[in-house]
Amino acid sequence: MVDSRFGVVELDDLPDDLRERLAPIAEKSGFVPNIFRALGRRPAELRAFLDYHDALMESDEGLSKAERELVVVATSGANHCGYCVVAHGAILRIRAKDPHLADQVATNPWGAELDDRRRAIVDLALALTREPELFGEAHLDAARAAGLSDDEIWDIGSITALFAASNRLAHLSALTPNPEFYTMGRTPPPPR
Amino acid sequence: MVDSRFGVVELDDLPDDLRERLAPIAEKSGFVPNIFRALGRRPAELRAFLDYHDALMESDEGLSKAERELVVVATSGANHCGYCVVAHGAILRIRAKDPHLADQVATNPWGAELDDRRRAIVDLALALTREPELFGEAHLDAARAAGLSDDEIWDIGSITALFAASNRLAHLSALTPNPEFYTMGRTPPPPR
Amino acid sequence: MVDSRFGVVELDDLPDDLRERLAPIAEKSGFVPNIFRALGRRPAELRAFLDYHDALMESDEGLSKAERELVVVATSGANHCGYCVVAHGAILRIRAKDPHLADQVATNPWGAELDDRRRAIVDLALALTREPELFGEAHLDAARAAGLSDDEIWDIGSITALFAASNRLAHLSALTPNPEFYTMGRTPPPPR
Amino acid sequence: MVDSRFGVVELDDLPDDLRERLAPIAEKSGFVPNIFRALGRRPAELRAFLDYHDALMESDEGLSKAERELVVVATSGANHCGYCVVAHGAILRIRAKDPHLADQVATNPWGAELDDRRRAIVDLALALTREPELFGEAHLDAARAAGLSDDEIWDIGSITALFAASNRLAHLSALTPNPEFYTMGRTPPPPR
Amino acid sequence: MVDSRFGVVELDDLPDDLRERLAPIAEKSGFVPNIFRALGRRPAELRAFLDYHDALMESDEGLSKAERELVVVATSGANHCGYCVVAHGAILRIRAKDPHLADQVATNPWGAELDDRRRAIVDLALALTREPELFGEAHLDAARAAGLSDDEIWDIGSITALFAASNRLAHLSALTPNPEFYTMGRTPPPPR
Amino acid sequence: MVDSRFGVVELDDLPDDLRERLAPIAEKSGFVPNIFRALGRRPAELRAFLDYHDALMESDEGLSKAERELVVVATSGANHCGYCVVAHGAILRIRAKDPHLADQVATNPWGAELDDRRRAIVDLALALTREPELFGEAHLDAARAAGLSDDEIWDIGSITALFAASNRLAHLSALTPNPEFYTMGRTPPPPR
Repeated sequence: MVDSRFGVVELDDLPDDLRERLAPIAEKSGFVPNIFRALGRRPAELRAFLDYHDALMESDEGLSKAERELVVVATSGANHCGYCVVAHGAILRIRAKDPHLADQVATNPWGAELDDRRRAIVDLALALTREPELFGEAHLDAARAAGLSDDEIWDIGSITALFAASNRLAHLSALTPNPEFYTMGRTPPPPR
Repeated sequence: MVDSRFGVVELDDLPDDLRERLAPIAEKSGFVPNIFRALGRRPAELRAFLDYHDALMESDEGLSKAERELVVVATSGANHCGYCVVAHGAILRIRAKDPHLADQVATNPWGAELDDRRRAIVDLALALTREPELFGEAHLDAARAAGLSDDEIWDIGSITALFAASNRLAHLSALTPNPEFYTMGRTPPPPR
Repeated sequence: MVDSRFGVVELDDLPDDLRERLAPIAEKSGFVPNIFRALGRRPAELRAFLDYHDALMESDEGLSKAERELVVVATSGANHCGYCVVAHGAILRIRAKDPHLADQVATNPWGAELDDRRRAIVDLALALTREPELFGEAHLDAARAAGLSDDEIWDIGSITALFAASNRLAHLSALTPNPEFYTMGRTPPPPR
Repeated sequence: MVDSRFGVVELDDLPDDLRERLAPIAEKSGFVPNIFRALGRRPAELRAFLDYHDALMESDEGLSKAERELVVVATSGANHCGYCVVAHGAILRIRAKDPHLADQVATNPWGAELDDRRRAIVDLALALTREPELFGEAHLDAARAAGLSDDEIWDIGSITALFAASNRLAHLSALTPNPEFYTMGRTPPPPR
Repeated sequence: MVDSRFGVVELDDLPDDLRERLAPIAEKSGFVPNIFRALGRRPAELRAFLDYHDALMESDEGLSKAERELVVVATSGANHCGYCVVAHGAILRIRAKDPHLADQVATNPWGAELDDRRRAIVDLALALTREPELFGEAHLDAARAAGLSDDEIWDIGSITALFAASNRLAHLSALTPNPEFYTMGRTPPPPR
Repeated sequence: MVDSRFGVVELDDLPDDLRERLAPIAEKSGFVPNIFRALGRRPAELRAFLDYHDALMESDEGLSKAERELVVVATSGANHCGYCVVAHGAILRIRAKDPHLADQVATNPWGAELDDRRRAIVDLALALTREPELFGEAHLDAARAAGLSDDEIWDIGSITALFAASNRLAHLSALTPNPEFYTMGRTPPPPR
């Protein structure tokens, strides 16, 4: 079992801008997430992917960062993406400060018990995940009725779209999650 | 969020035979798995469920116990059963002595990378899980070609059948996994 | 075409308790239903199956016995289980004293015309049959609105679960219905 | 429960040509099949339907009449059409002189045990039934490998197409099978 | 790439009545639609097909001719029928005097933006197209709420049924659209 | 019917770099494709989308540009995306110099008749489109057997992934195709 069917590129072998961009992530978490190593064989694609990702995921305006990760885990669960569920499950546990939410949502995004706002967020994401041709005004009405703004709806829909791509890149390359992801956020940090 | 939509029965309130049967499990693991507390409202059903479970799961003849749990996790993943994936994922981690296998198989039982014997076991289980009407000689031929005996095939099929029931009982009652299951088997036991 | 892919065990070759338990059934109906002959190769499993079956099917509290068989025929039709549809179709014809109901429900459980209570029973069973991950409060609300109690809902859900198992055991073993089942209950008994 | 959602027209109220055409059927079987009474509200459509039906079903060249009914029962089973399964199940029992075949094929057309020629006939019909967009050369190759001629393949495909229409007309009008169909052909005719 | 897998029959080789019937169509449009050339190998089937087609499509009572073609394009799009989408897309463009409607409805019949009456027509057709077993009173209620009469509902349902057949005949024979269809109705006729 | 549910941004209102980037496209084709006007409300997202798009679509190494558009049309057809099918159908007609290919592939990507290389390209794209969890070595083997290199496979998979995103953005915003797309490439350019 290799990390990716099409090989990986290590941090040191990436173009300067990408190396400088990913180094802080590697330093902070102690490893380079395999999606970056796999996409590294195509620097222009990795760069665009990172740009799109950061534009949608690194903001707390409207949707919180935890809610953004909730969208990722729900849609990746519905798409049965092992890499994305394990990697973003870890991030969701940390951002939502909840050790159980990710496993529940990833396993059954349709039925996991969530509060009304989270359920509306996940429902909107699911409506675009597997049968996007059925998406319509009824889904928007439900989202708005739950208090979601048009900007939040755009974010949910766009994150779902981006991970429709990301899930398929992981399926294409049989991407393996870094082992660190499996345990991150499962236990509360020790009190200081 | 309660443990079951229809309430639970505590160990002390169960009929004697069930209490005596479950007490060692509770003692060993430190908790009573919620499936037993939920089924406890119908002692005759709990008794039959335990009997069927033990007949299929507590044996190492042919299929190993780890392989039996692999069937459970694969079919429960395909059925999106939160309780069963979390609970039996823990048992699979322990029995297979592998901290990653359960998450991979639960998230994508169709595509997770497995050795040939495990892949054949999981494929046979999946063939009976979602569209059992398509099950036929071709599935048996593939299983036999992978070296599975008729007794092993019977076990795989019967475990898949039992958890088709178990998954639906969990969906019916919105069963919540005991928190202990989420972390069991994720790290190796400390050396003695 | 044999009765089961994995062979059958005749009444006389079963352990005493099972022989004594099944003999009255064989005597009354004139034959041993093939599901028992097929499961007979694993006495502990047959025993547990019979216990679970009897706990759920041999009661008239809440759901009538005809309604319990209606659940079996609906879910077995949705699962395309030849053995279960033919065998339990016969029992439903007899218990509901209706020669047409079983064929209608087995062929199209979603659309067969039923009175409101029967439709609610069948709808609840179907909600757990093929896509149990979608089961949720909306289904329970509809069932309760039709007057079903929580005990009746549990029975419907648990019978659906048990036959999710039973259907798959029949698919696994390519179980053949006993010929007697095809005609039972199709014509009214002669007046006495 | 009425015979059709949109009403029926009795034999005596049909245009002369249709009355003369259907009278022998009514006389022979003792009743007018409800599909004709329902379509009777649109004589031109009934006429075209009968013409298409007779062109495909009333021939023994290539496919036998029993094999033509086998196609009807398989595709109607896959489409969950209560009227067509009950009505053509009766005709199949009679034409194939087999009291069990229809129930088995209607309940599980994909998995029912059939000899090679019948399996190839049913497989070809099923390939065009639910996901006709997937139909291709591989299905034709399999049919030809089983010895089916191009004229037989045309017949199987065209009967499947005609009953794709017929099934939907029955769903549209909630067509009820005439009660006589349920028991026809279930027991051998008394010896003379 | 031939016009049909099973060959075609040219106008001059058809029986007199069919030749006389199709000649005006060929003259008016400048070509013989390939469906007629393909069905020509079975004159009785072609005759019945034309009769059924004309009974349902050549009327302006209730549904307009454009609305009838809308049903054809929607259901053929849902069935992924290349021939029917291209051929009837052309007719819909002409009859609805709209160069964009057909492509939108064929590509996504579930989600294309339509006025309320057209949406109700398409929704009813779709309800009978892929999962006709789910058709029921709720679909009729929605159609009636949009102002559709029972005769219009019958027409929509019957056109959907006829093209369930027609789509499958095209899939069976790998029918190729005549090249003229691709451009018909895409630009307004020049002013006179 | 507006161009996008969430409004559009005109060329003149975009940030300088985007305006300069899109102006040549607008000049050459005579209009700004609506996807750019819709994404314009989020310049960072539009920028990343364009970067990813150009990295994958504006190359003739390995896959030709026509083959890249073929992937887009096939996957967008399978996802029922009206905007993408109409817009990229136009580009495919032009790049492949074939006025019929796009309509055939968009309507039925699974069954459209294609030469072996194109069929292999489309099959690989489809394998990742609707049920990406089933993607595996068998799909890669088939692609390689058809002569596709690993770089070509990566391109096909990544284009499929990008348009999994793009299709969903169009569904989210109910994106309307620019009217010019419907007729582009349908007739050969006049000889000079």
